[in-house]
Amino acid sequence: MNELATQFRTHTCGDLRPGDEGAEAVLSGHVDRVLAEGRRFLIRDRYGKTLVATHEQADAETARRFAGLNPEDVVKVEGLVALRDEEERDEKEPAGAVLLEAKAIEVLSAAAPLPEGILDAEEVSLEDRLAFRQLYLRRQEMQARLELRSRLAQAIREYLVGEGFLEIETPHLFWYDRVALASEPIPVEGGKAFALPSGGLVLDQYIVAGQVERFFQLLRVTRRELRTVTPMHAPEHTLLDLNLLYVDVPDFCRVVEGLLAHVFRTVAGVELETPFPTCTYHEALEKFGTDKPDLRRARAEDGEHAEKGKREHAPVWITDYPMLMEDKGTLVPGVVVFTEPQDGAVGDFAENPEAREKVIGKAFDLVIDGVEVASAYIGNHDLRIQRLVWDEIYRFSTPDLVRVRAPLEAHRFGVPPHGGMNLGFDRLVALILGLDSIDEAMFFPKTSGCTDPLLSAPGPVPLEAVKDIVGEAPPAGPADAELVQETVEL
Amino acid sequence: MNELATQFRTHTCGDLRPGDEGAEAVLSGHVDRVLAEGRRFLIRDRYGKTLVATHEQADAETARRFAGLNPEDVVKVEGLVALRDEEERDEKEPAGAVLLEAKAIEVLSAAAPLPEGILDAEEVSLEDRLAFRQLYLRRQEMQARLELRSRLAQAIREYLVGEGFLEIETPHLFWYDRVALASEPIPVEGGKAFALPSGGLVLDQYIVAGQVERFFQLLRVTRRELRTVTPMHAPEHTLLDLNLLYVDVPDFCRVVEGLLAHVFRTVAGVELETPFPTCTYHEALEKFGTDKPDLRRARAEDGEHAEKGKREHAPVWITDYPMLMEDKGTLVPGVVVFTEPQDGAVGDFAENPEAREKVIGKAFDLVIDGVEVASAYIGNHDLRIQRLVWDEIYRFSTPDLVRVRAPLEAHRFGVPPHGGMNLGFDRLVALILGLDSIDEAMFFPKTSGCTDPLLSAPGPVPLEAVKDIVGEAPPAGPADAELVQETVEL
Repeated sequence: MNELATQFRTHTCGDLRPGDEGAEAVLSGHVDRVLAEGRRFLIRDRYGKTLVATHEQADAETARRFAGLNPEDVVKVEGLVALRDEEERDEKEPAGAVLLEAKAIEVLSAAAPLPEGILDAEEVSLEDRLAFRQLYLRRQEMQARLELRSRLAQAIREYLVGEGFLEIETPHLFWYDRVALASEPIPVEGGKAFALPSGGLVLDQYIVAGQVERFFQLLRVTRRELRTVTPMHAPEHTLLDLNLLYVDVPDFCRVVEGLLAHVFRTVAGVELETPFPTCTYHEALEKFGTDKPDLRRARAEDGEHAEKGKREHAPVWITDYPMLMEDKGTLVPGVVVFTEPQDGAVGDFAENPEAREKVIGKAFDLVIDGVEVASAYIGNHDLRIQRLVWDEIYRFSTPDLVRVRAPLEAHRFGVPPHGGMNLGFDRLVALILGLDSIDEAMFFPKTSGCTDPLLSAPGPVPLEAVKDIVGEAPPAGPADAELVQETVEL
Repeated sequence: MNELATQFRTHTCGDLRPGDEGAEAVLSGHVDRVLAEGRRFLIRDRYGKTLVATHEQADAETARRFAGLNPEDVVKVEGLVALRDEEERDEKEPAGAVLLEAKAIEVLSAAAPLPEGILDAEEVSLEDRLAFRQLYLRRQEMQARLELRSRLAQAIREYLVGEGFLEIETPHLFWYDRVALASEPIPVEGGKAFALPSGGLVLDQYIVAGQVERFFQLLRVTRRELRTVTPMHAPEHTLLDLNLLYVDVPDFCRVVEGLLAHVFRTVAGVELETPFPTCTYHEALEKFGTDKPDLRRARAEDGEHAEKGKREHAPVWITDYPMLMEDKGTLVPGVVVFTEPQDGAVGDFAENPEAREKVIGKAFDLVIDGVEVASAYIGNHDLRIQRLVWDEIYRFSTPDLVRVRAPLEAHRFGVPPHGGMNLGFDRLVALILGLDSIDEAMFFPKTSGCTDPLLSAPGPVPLEAVKDIVGEAPPAGPADAELVQETVEL
């Protein structure tokens, strides 16, 4: 028996073959195309398309139902398998050599008239792609992309679990603080709120301190800038959050290179040469004018040439990011604020501010084909150094310290040397598929205005839903100071 | 070379064996226990414990550092492997036959004095288990539980992907509507908000209509009743959301039984007999007084007996739920409102209200050992029947129709016969581990008051964060009616 046989079919629409002729078969699927003035049609499911014709013994009712079919109706057909005439065969379809001569047909679900182009036009606006998602998902290229997305997720997990990684889960009802790393408030009663996490960093600190040696999750995150949608950004997206204990930079890179070589090999059939080349942040700026160089182009300029017709990928580690960078005239952290400085370079920079600006952190990005795919760092495992970094290099104020206090709390009962990475899962899918925009690789992306036309979201909110949290904002200042005393005192 | 060797170790704390004696080794880990008045200690990581002693050539500084060690400090030790004396061997530890004679030791991360009991007491309050999560996670039983949780997730994916399922992803920034199925509002600018999904049902309708034959996701959901935490409920938890096309009840049950037999076999070493027994809702009430019977107990009462010492599990399908149930004197939907009625039993119930109350739906629950593990349904694929169900059986009003409109929109271009299931992933972990409460099987549960003591969440919200959405609530009534006209007209 066919494993996919159910009450509605004996075979899928891609199953029947020469050799099955004369057999009874039941197929169910969408009406793909009506042919021969309503006397024939193609029936379609995920597995293929089969040609359906009326059987010579079919009654008038069956003929009438054939004539009344509309594209995308869902039908169930019972009949006998026959061979197609030589000239009717379709080599590209798995069931392209046979047809089903229908004795009975039933319309299971009728389709309304279709909006134009969603199923077959070359260009469809993003708004329409989203508003008619149920149709757009039926397109062959979308089905292929989403299958690749699923295979990529499995390949990542398969490799990591094989390497001794544990899959973890962290809450989505997260910390709300006026200076939180996270996103907009989710109000609950009593004048308080949760927030959504913008990444795994904070709770990862408790897990690395919890003796979980190697762990990861595919984590949904939400960025505070809810409306910043660009081709490679989305307000809601999926990260591979990966952490390792007892490692330094070279150990960390080796594991990530193994992972990427595996997934590119199994999912894309591409061999990545390991170890990946490295380039410091300053070298990259000097040589390429960017810290996201596309080494394929760089190579072409150097006179090297790629194999024609083959998709080539060029990964490179950009290393040695400075701990501080200039942003609009002020110095701000250039790396994750938990990052360990290189060579223990901390101390009293009061008399030598230039030295402070030049401290390099153990922070490294993975860039593939000019796209920043992942950001990694080695964290401070010595709390005294963490405090020196914050006091002397970042010169954090009290509210800053409240915001970043998590590792001080998480690490106070000892923490192993550790490193973490966030890898953009949607970007990796887009890279492998050669897409310029991550939304084409997602099931339900949002528009560039961060709306979901399918669900009419975001939607209006009645006063009752939020009145509980209004007017109860705590006084600013003293509460924070107390919190800092309590939590960052060593 | 040891695959887990890094800059901080040549071996893990579970690697060394007789035969390694005389070899140089570097270990890193937490100080598990200080022994012999500070001259020896056990070093611990995820893989085991190794005894460390001072080498005879160790200098005074090394001896001084040994004496200063505190429990849970993270240290790096370099030394020579030696055999333990016969009477010192620990058969239960993989590295229990050897010791490391340390020539040098470095404290990588110092631990503050430990709160009492978190690491070893038999009973620890939930509040303490959460507030000191980084320590509680180090307990051996927690490490084992979390490893099982990870293995269970892999076993589920492995099986489903092998059966042709696609792993999908649906957004967390979801539809906010005053009558939404979802949870509290997440305000954005312009007087509008998103909400978190309470399940996969709504967007699944677009995917089943999108020709994705078999799909699943491990989905994080949030219940509106944010503060209802009971041993088997949590405001935030993980569901296996699973959907199939072209199926009816028997097809659906066969796939789920195959999945559960696989995961119980591979993760728990338990054979579940398939097919599972079935019992209608009315039979269950009559025979057991509940629709969540524990068939292990029922069997014991019948005089049957279980094999002693072996954990036994008793799955049962509870089928044939009535479409309507009484709740506080009124009739409310007893099943998912998209559920197909059995035997096409819809029509004009105006003259026969009792018949209306007796309509049975294709809804079925999976109960294991008295715990409701999963709820499944076969959905209406014929929109005309869906409308009849809502008009004649549920007698939905206009706001009701707005709330449930998703399938009418999703299915209007044809939808195959389909079924869906939500399986409580945390409950399944708890069942396999024999735990009475799901919080012991989660990484970061919340207290029974729905707080997170680790992050002090939920936290206070400043007025500015919500002022944008206050006072802009749309007028009730007319807008809804328009929406219904627009979206549910067939």
